[in-house]
Amino acid sequence: MSMQEWIERKRDGLALSGQEIGAFVAGLVSGEIPDYQAAAFLMAAYLRGMDEAETAALTSAMLRSGAVLDLSTIGGAKVDKHSTGGVGDKVSLVLAPAVAACGGRVPMISGRSLGHTGGTLDKLESIPGFRVGLTLDELCAQVGDLGAAFGAATADLAPADRLLYRLRDATATVASIPLITSSILAKKAAEGIDGLVLDVKTGNGAFMATPRAARDLARSLVSTAERLGLRAVALITDMSQPLGAAIGNSVEVVEAVEALKGGGPRDLVELVTRLGAEMLLLAGLVPDLRSGCDQIARSLADGSALARFRAIVERQGGDASAIEDVSRLPCASRREPLESPASGHVQSIDCRALGAAACALGAGRRRMEDAIDHGVGLICMKKVGDAVVAGEPLLLVLYNDAARYAAVRPALQAAFVIGEKRPSARPLVRARLAGAGCRERS
Amino acid sequence: MSMQEWIERKRDGLALSGQEIGAFVAGLVSGEIPDYQAAAFLMAAYLRGMDEAETAALTSAMLRSGAVLDLSTIGGAKVDKHSTGGVGDKVSLVLAPAVAACGGRVPMISGRSLGHTGGTLDKLESIPGFRVGLTLDELCAQVGDLGAAFGAATADLAPADRLLYRLRDATATVASIPLITSSILAKKAAEGIDGLVLDVKTGNGAFMATPRAARDLARSLVSTAERLGLRAVALITDMSQPLGAAIGNSVEVVEAVEALKGGGPRDLVELVTRLGAEMLLLAGLVPDLRSGCDQIARSLADGSALARFRAIVERQGGDASAIEDVSRLPCASRREPLESPASGHVQSIDCRALGAAACALGAGRRRMEDAIDHGVGLICMKKVGDAVVAGEPLLLVLYNDAARYAAVRPALQAAFVIGEKRPSARPLVRARLAGAGCRERS
Repeated sequence: MSMQEWIERKRDGLALSGQEIGAFVAGLVSGEIPDYQAAAFLMAAYLRGMDEAETAALTSAMLRSGAVLDLSTIGGAKVDKHSTGGVGDKVSLVLAPAVAACGGRVPMISGRSLGHTGGTLDKLESIPGFRVGLTLDELCAQVGDLGAAFGAATADLAPADRLLYRLRDATATVASIPLITSSILAKKAAEGIDGLVLDVKTGNGAFMATPRAARDLARSLVSTAERLGLRAVALITDMSQPLGAAIGNSVEVVEAVEALKGGGPRDLVELVTRLGAEMLLLAGLVPDLRSGCDQIARSLADGSALARFRAIVERQGGDASAIEDVSRLPCASRREPLESPASGHVQSIDCRALGAAACALGAGRRRMEDAIDHGVGLICMKKVGDAVVAGEPLLLVLYNDAARYAAVRPALQAAFVIGEKRPSARPLVRARLAGAGCRERS
Repeated sequence: MSMQEWIERKRDGLALSGQEIGAFVAGLVSGEIPDYQAAAFLMAAYLRGMDEAETAALTSAMLRSGAVLDLSTIGGAKVDKHSTGGVGDKVSLVLAPAVAACGGRVPMISGRSLGHTGGTLDKLESIPGFRVGLTLDELCAQVGDLGAAFGAATADLAPADRLLYRLRDATATVASIPLITSSILAKKAAEGIDGLVLDVKTGNGAFMATPRAARDLARSLVSTAERLGLRAVALITDMSQPLGAAIGNSVEVVEAVEALKGGGPRDLVELVTRLGAEMLLLAGLVPDLRSGCDQIARSLADGSALARFRAIVERQGGDASAIEDVSRLPCASRREPLESPASGHVQSIDCRALGAAACALGAGRRRMEDAIDHGVGLICMKKVGDAVVAGEPLLLVLYNDAARYAAVRPALQAAFVIGEKRPSARPLVRARLAGAGCRERS
């Protein structure tokens, strides 16, 4: 069989064997299979789909294309969380130290800003000196010593994913559930973890905008992880408005620190608690989710999560004094309120528009080579359901470049819909999907 | 708009504008659009289709990617024929001189063997000295002087087609009606002709095996040609058995010469006559198809077509004496009859298998760099409906390499199905589709 025939089979909606998918990935990495054949295959896979066995085989082949972290010398179950990306999502910054404070081991390899969403690594880099470029050895040692580390993916982890992702990005084949599944899981499985919690976002600020697409992705992620022997649970969570109030980099660090100090916005703390409980359950550290929630809440209340965060920041070269004195973090030179044109209640927020605006102000990148402006961002003063009086600020805009602010202002103003009635509240966690190996013990 | 967005639109089944398709083709030729984006686009087009306007825009952009023959100094209408490829199809060798003898102008740019089908250029090159590599100027001058020329596509004719075809071949996106249509018509329109007759083959020896696919392709070809201002007629013709008896190169030249001398197999002569009549009608040289058929038949009977063929061969450097003395053509060293295992009637012939076997004997190429063995081939002694007695030869196999013959022998034997009843005869020309500008004057 040749690559042409594999493309032909996928084109005609037939399934490939695990061996064929493995040979495809190996050929792509070795350069024997040219980009254009891979691109045609990706489009055929996008339009024809891949079944569970194919998705698992693709994930496994991508995983095997590079190194896998060996955390076997570290005792205890290693667990991690992956989010499909949202706006104002600073969960990782709070979650990893909190789970570590509860005894979990979290080798958290995170990403950069992508499209309208922020990136954990960019946020952490707003702490002066913070170094995300850990070697795999440094990462392992730190997880052993402190229970958690924040690292960037290295070139030797799942290199096939980088090749495929670059092609998908250029060929309009990103938004495919089997391809997303394999890309996420290959990288996470390369961390050598035992369990994974997936935060699948839905709503207008999520990549999977519809609840149905989010559910399909969650199901695909959980079942594929299980096929790879990785215990997994997915929470489908609301991203129809930003998580917390802050959108940006240093502003999100400030908000994360507030949560680590036992304060912070209710929705952020709720999501950290729910995801953390799942991680503790997967790690076998708690008998049920209720105990897990209690433990995470205690770690935030008693300062143990904050202490863990401080230790991580110090270990990774960051200025830990910035945790106490946030004025040491980068700060935009100008701030301007965006006032409500009417009185009433916030009916909805175009969350993607806020994310895109923050990115345009400099909080994210348009191209990989763009520099991040860590001080800029948005502070949501009103969330969906909040009452507002005409002239009251909806947003605080933190910016350095007046022209950029002028360019995004109309989009920011259009992002808030104000109406008379108070809309009914939506739950933050909309559904939970657990793999067969991860049912909650009652 | 960027290429990513065009791929995305096609992926989602939306239509692209003519301008967008033009920019895609121009970007591909200039190298600005990489192969992998073109490959993803081709797969999306394969699976989602392209409408008539898109197909015409693609054809037009491919045509404009290179030079177009200027035949304006030559008087009279310029017409050509294109066949979608069959087994034993030596029509062009008889048709071009016959139409030229009747006053038509035929700038026939032909192809090489492809897959299980032969190529006109390869057949002509079995005539010692015959040179198909005419410059465009030589081709034009010869059409002016002799009414017909046989040339190979030059690098400057529709270069976008070569790029796209190479990609389609490597990415399992050949068999797409809009892509086939644009590839055929861009090359033919580059000949600067006024009218085109399309011989769309159907049956087990054709690329379009089902009558429905053949009809869809014929309709697409005719309507797209009309959109480009090229008058077109398509005949859907039977390719469920070889055309004539000879399959190969020199053996097909011999059979073509027989037809030019007023003999030759009935089906070959019928198809030459029908296609020739269409070309004469398109050229405005006859008032109706009946007169066209009469004129073509007369040119074969009175030696004028043969004389024209001889003049063409001489002009293109070929040994014209081989037309009288076919022993001057390459001839295989061995010939062996393949005997019928039973008595009865030939029920069916696996025409594709015969074509593939002839190719495997050396009459065609597996890869572009393979050399052709001009002397080898097959002679069909029995066609569908013929009575046969056990032990009578079904085929004569002409070969040079005993190992190759041994390898194809089982396939040859399996290609003929013998049964008791005589199957009902099938018409050679199954349908005619004419563009709005090409209705027969009554």
